[in-house]
Amino acid sequence: MSEAGPSALLRTPCFEAPAEPIPVLRPLLPCADRILPYLRRIDETRLYSNHGPLSLELERRLAEALGLPPGGLVTASSGTAALVGAILASAGRASPDRPLAIIPAFTFAATAAAVEQCGYRPYLADVGAESWMLDPARLVDHPKREQLGLVVPVATFGRPVPQEPWRRFRATSGIPVVIDGAASFAGLAERPGEFLGAIPVAISFHATKAFATGEGGAVATIDTDLALRSGQALNFGVSGIRDCRMASTNGKMSEYHAAVGLAELDFWPEKLAAFRTVAERYRQAVAAAGLAQRFYGMPDIAPNYALFRCRGAAEADRVEHSLRQGSIDFRLWYGRGLQHQTYYTSLPRDALDVTDDIAPCLVGLPMAPDLDEETIGRVVTALAAGAAEFA
Amino acid sequence: MSEAGPSALLRTPCFEAPAEPIPVLRPLLPCADRILPYLRRIDETRLYSNHGPLSLELERRLAEALGLPPGGLVTASSGTAALVGAILASAGRASPDRPLAIIPAFTFAATAAAVEQCGYRPYLADVGAESWMLDPARLVDHPKREQLGLVVPVATFGRPVPQEPWRRFRATSGIPVVIDGAASFAGLAERPGEFLGAIPVAISFHATKAFATGEGGAVATIDTDLALRSGQALNFGVSGIRDCRMASTNGKMSEYHAAVGLAELDFWPEKLAAFRTVAERYRQAVAAAGLAQRFYGMPDIAPNYALFRCRGAAEADRVEHSLRQGSIDFRLWYGRGLQHQTYYTSLPRDALDVTDDIAPCLVGLPMAPDLDEETIGRVVTALAAGAAEFA
Repeated sequence: MSEAGPSALLRTPCFEAPAEPIPVLRPLLPCADRILPYLRRIDETRLYSNHGPLSLELERRLAEALGLPPGGLVTASSGTAALVGAILASAGRASPDRPLAIIPAFTFAATAAAVEQCGYRPYLADVGAESWMLDPARLVDHPKREQLGLVVPVATFGRPVPQEPWRRFRATSGIPVVIDGAASFAGLAERPGEFLGAIPVAISFHATKAFATGEGGAVATIDTDLALRSGQALNFGVSGIRDCRMASTNGKMSEYHAAVGLAELDFWPEKLAAFRTVAERYRQAVAAAGLAQRFYGMPDIAPNYALFRCRGAAEADRVEHSLRQGSIDFRLWYGRGLQHQTYYTSLPRDALDVTDDIAPCLVGLPMAPDLDEETIGRVVTALAAGAAEFA
Repeated sequence: MSEAGPSALLRTPCFEAPAEPIPVLRPLLPCADRILPYLRRIDETRLYSNHGPLSLELERRLAEALGLPPGGLVTASSGTAALVGAILASAGRASPDRPLAIIPAFTFAATAAAVEQCGYRPYLADVGAESWMLDPARLVDHPKREQLGLVVPVATFGRPVPQEPWRRFRATSGIPVVIDGAASFAGLAERPGEFLGAIPVAISFHATKAFATGEGGAVATIDTDLALRSGQALNFGVSGIRDCRMASTNGKMSEYHAAVGLAELDFWPEKLAAFRTVAERYRQAVAAAGLAQRFYGMPDIAPNYALFRCRGAAEADRVEHSLRQGSIDFRLWYGRGLQHQTYYTSLPRDALDVTDDIAPCLVGLPMAPDLDEETIGRVVTALAAGAAEFA
């Protein structure tokens, strides 16, 4: 060992400590102390699931937050369960003559899993290059329309799906539509008139979402009968008396997750504001780096995402390499599209040019409600270094 | 109003206050203070689901409690989800040439829902008059055996299903078997050598079960590869890398439910002892009433049930009437069999004489770990009054 000792070595540039890794998502749900008062209420009632008072209160308050009539929202054990409940209530299980369900290729596996669970064979359709969503106008004359039992548009990156075009699609085609609302809760709350209506929206409250209960979800619609039936589908087809009257599963939200949801709702304005601050910091940093046009954050997409659009696979490689070099985690949230997931490679599909094109280019950047300026600076510096050669 | 006023009226016999209603089940899960230390750990990690440290710890401790190798137990969001995970991992989704899954008619709707969710058409078979279970010896030559893709024996009232006969059935027939372990956790823990093995057992931790997490469940098997695949099926078919490789759903247990489960496990010996005391009190009371031969409680069945077997529908009516008169809630836990549930009436089936016979006669009596002697006395008095005419 040299006379200067190891501490001197550590100060020399080549032994510089590696940068602290930055995770792509670091969710922040209500702390124990905020959940505790609700847990005490559970102690009093000794009701732990099956539509106890906390889940009913959460449903009431969420319906209010979304401008829905009382009974217009039912909670679920997950976003996937919510989607299953909404499908079984709207369309039932697949029939032999209409076995297909169109879903976008540019989505998470949950959409396909929920559809398959209800007996449909997912059929992958392409999305719009700017909307990132299914286009109802293009599906009305779809060559497979006679075999379609269901269409499931997805709120890609939490961009809510407009009701009106899909209401018209359903009216024209007679094909049931259920919206996979995924991470769109904040967007729905912002403009419920445009995004909530007779077509049911299944929302996810998974920990990674801005509004979160750990695992959880909900079905939201102005059609309170449909909401009721969705809840029934998530409780063994039973409503009131113990008689199973429809295809069903167990997808109820427990009182524990409802407790988390109520605590989350208590401080939702503050959490949303925190996300907004982070998105603004990101915008300032990317603007300073000349990359503002290719950054996506709230309110355009859900608060829990920050996205950078690369100009092609080559730039994406370079950006990803640069982020990796900086110990910065990133994610292609929908992979390269469902058609590239091993289990889904054999699914029937349309040409998927847009999905093939955009999926590898929309790079998910680190996001958290408490992401500080220094961290954002590190992310954007690495981003700019990767994107530079293509500027 | 009379001179004596309303309080005098209330004292006269005809205005006697009605007896306090006795609920059929009053679950008791860990109080908030017992859960709190685990919630504080969640605050530290900021991990809320997706196999966080609490669910991994719960899996480790439960595997140990059941004498399983490490990795032999995976948690799930519900008993139904656990059953789905075990089916997808063992048998996959139904194939067109083997679309049927035999399940007992004498079961809860969850068994049928899970099977249907995996694409199988449930086929109802009858149970043994004493075992209340499917009999593998009778199914080996079943007329539909060429169309069977799955058999799901059920741990009726939490009586664990023996492994060995089903292991032999599977070996002989080549048909996958998944056990719906329902409320059998205590029984499995008592004699794991007999009831746990290569055939996976899906367990429910619903609030109504003796060991409970609110909503929750697990897959238990000595086949750790199968357990791993079951967990994969409950996390979008993903294991390690983000690639969906099998039919799947979202059936993960969140860290919140894992927190409840760990707190439940901390005091499980005490809770089990409390249930045992209640069962013993019941036994003394029914013995005093001359009804001991027709009472079922732990350890014969799960700790959370107390059952009385009526001698026929007429006696059952009389017993139920007497319980109602005493403001005592009761339950036919499996109704009159699945074939009588509206949604399942059209299912293909065998003759169901035993189910038709026993389902209306096994009356579920009030049960709770803190049911006191006086309450049990009231239940047994009403029971004896109802049963008397048939003694």
